[in-house]
Amino acid sequence: MTKGRIEAFSDGVIAIIITIMVLELKVPHEADLAALQHLLPVFLAYVLSFLNVGIYWNNHHHMFHSVKHVGGWVLWANLHLLFWLSLMPFATGFMEESGFLSMPVALYAFVLLMCAISYTLLTFALIAEHGRDSDFARALGSDAKGKASLAAYAAAVPLAYVNVWVSLALVLTVAVIWVVPDRRFARPA
Amino acid sequence: MTKGRIEAFSDGVIAIIITIMVLELKVPHEADLAALQHLLPVFLAYVLSFLNVGIYWNNHHHMFHSVKHVGGWVLWANLHLLFWLSLMPFATGFMEESGFLSMPVALYAFVLLMCAISYTLLTFALIAEHGRDSDFARALGSDAKGKASLAAYAAAVPLAYVNVWVSLALVLTVAVIWVVPDRRFARPA
Amino acid sequence: MTKGRIEAFSDGVIAIIITIMVLELKVPHEADLAALQHLLPVFLAYVLSFLNVGIYWNNHHHMFHSVKHVGGWVLWANLHLLFWLSLMPFATGFMEESGFLSMPVALYAFVLLMCAISYTLLTFALIAEHGRDSDFARALGSDAKGKASLAAYAAAVPLAYVNVWVSLALVLTVAVIWVVPDRRFARPA
Amino acid sequence: MTKGRIEAFSDGVIAIIITIMVLELKVPHEADLAALQHLLPVFLAYVLSFLNVGIYWNNHHHMFHSVKHVGGWVLWANLHLLFWLSLMPFATGFMEESGFLSMPVALYAFVLLMCAISYTLLTFALIAEHGRDSDFARALGSDAKGKASLAAYAAAVPLAYVNVWVSLALVLTVAVIWVVPDRRFARPA
Repeated sequence: MTKGRIEAFSDGVIAIIITIMVLELKVPHEADLAALQHLLPVFLAYVLSFLNVGIYWNNHHHMFHSVKHVGGWVLWANLHLLFWLSLMPFATGFMEESGFLSMPVALYAFVLLMCAISYTLLTFALIAEHGRDSDFARALGSDAKGKASLAAYAAAVPLAYVNVWVSLALVLTVAVIWVVPDRRFARPA
Repeated sequence: MTKGRIEAFSDGVIAIIITIMVLELKVPHEADLAALQHLLPVFLAYVLSFLNVGIYWNNHHHMFHSVKHVGGWVLWANLHLLFWLSLMPFATGFMEESGFLSMPVALYAFVLLMCAISYTLLTFALIAEHGRDSDFARALGSDAKGKASLAAYAAAVPLAYVNVWVSLALVLTVAVIWVVPDRRFARPA
Repeated sequence: MTKGRIEAFSDGVIAIIITIMVLELKVPHEADLAALQHLLPVFLAYVLSFLNVGIYWNNHHHMFHSVKHVGGWVLWANLHLLFWLSLMPFATGFMEESGFLSMPVALYAFVLLMCAISYTLLTFALIAEHGRDSDFARALGSDAKGKASLAAYAAAVPLAYVNVWVSLALVLTVAVIWVVPDRRFARPA
Repeated sequence: MTKGRIEAFSDGVIAIIITIMVLELKVPHEADLAALQHLLPVFLAYVLSFLNVGIYWNNHHHMFHSVKHVGGWVLWANLHLLFWLSLMPFATGFMEESGFLSMPVALYAFVLLMCAISYTLLTFALIAEHGRDSDFARALGSDAKGKASLAAYAAAVPLAYVNVWVSLALVLTVAVIWVVPDRRFARPA
């Protein structure tokens, strides 16, 4: 099975997800700076979500670069990841419309947690496809960064009920550590 | 004729269809659990439709993997399939907004039936293109799973007027049997 | 210059245009047959526009199959075509919301006329690129079907002020003659 | 690292950006010429933004044609460009809904300025990747056109507070000089 089409379909879905989030930035009826200031939290939530979805595209791109073949379960694991990513516009919109209340921030962190879990399941499906001794499995290694992200998102969900800004700071921290390209796959194995 | 571009265009259209369905998940104005509970049926309908459209992409991907060349009628048969798939967001939205009343559930099953019929017509166009003795025709075989799906959808339409949950259970059953990748095309012929 | 990316971008834009038109099919608040009957003209306008945009994708696909190289003006001529195609959702929505009044039907025919003109300009740019004696120019031939379409659309604009159904019948006739694949490019030159 | 997927993802995002801008062209409730006249400024703003986004796609296409390999920072620089381009539909909608008041026009010019800055950063990332003595760096040359555009956009932002039409004329002038394809990359190096 060729991997080209699974990449193309994922690119299409992620491109749409990352772009429709901007529709939440609704055109204000007043044309003064106060209207823009009012939009600032919506804009910052958009930046955070654009960054997170961009990171998934980036890691997906790096990981599939090392993929040799894709079997049936890889297709479903990939679709499962796209499903949770597709909830990002809703979670972002809910968080910003509520003015960053606890429950919507917890839901936002939960959707990110599910994205991270489904991404991990995708790596499992790819390792099962390639074998534990494959170049792919070696390139993935212990996936310490992936495990740390899972733990951080799992902590960010309940933390939203303590302090939403601590929860969002944790989410932002995870994003920042991922902006550095994943050298495991970027380097030729 | 190369098949690359028909795959790319189908990927684009299906990616958009699967993603714009999430726009029906409208951000609630209240940020409490009751608001989320209210969204639960909308969410479940989204999951069901995401799964169904995902199955079509998956089967399309597997089938075109065995396709050698595409002629004029294949392009139109493919566009016909995309047309019915493009009605999925409307059918899903109508079903969930009505609170799962008989007529909208019947319409949902009808759109799925038309998708299945147009997919079958696409296989006919591809068999006509490749010949009855081709590897493609052999790989397709008797298409028992496809025929069973057609029968199930045809039954789900009137059943919606008897009991919508029985009708939806039938639709879900068809989805579950398709999640197993189509081994006919996944296997090298 | 490779033609792959101009095809990919056109596929993306056309895929979005053909899909966002379905957003005009707004979910009715009543779940009875009267609500569906009310949607029938909107649905028929969607079918007509889906068919027309599908025809452009199809012809674009066939024509670019014979294209050997693309220069600067081809990119702009292609973007010009995509611009007019991007007005199809607006023109379709305007026509159906007005209940098929003269002016919106004339505007719909005008947008189709501009699409046909910009498609013709694209063929000119491609002939200039390949040369009048090229295989591409020979495959295009006299383009009688293209010229007839231009004339029909040009007639459909004023005809909308006489009788909208005659105007729309003309538009539909042009669509039907294009559903037959363009054998000039489909055949190996 | 292959460049194919970064091109495909960029094509997808730009295709969506250029197409969702047309959603601002809202279907009028009256079907007379006055309703169309009312839409004229919205239409002209759409044309200007379509042209600008089209220019970015065009230049992106030409530049990546000369790219040999892409490293980690190129992916982020590209995502940064896509982020600012994704604000074009909002900036266009804000400008036209305000009836071309100073602040929204200044914001429109500012978003274009940020697109130009992020495009310049992308060229820097690509030069760092290929080396100052590479064919790529030689093809880019002094980038006088890019620098002039940056200066023009930087001037257009404050000018919007003096006279919005002068500011928009400057933006339009930059667009016109870019419609001529970038011969540096179009020519084989």
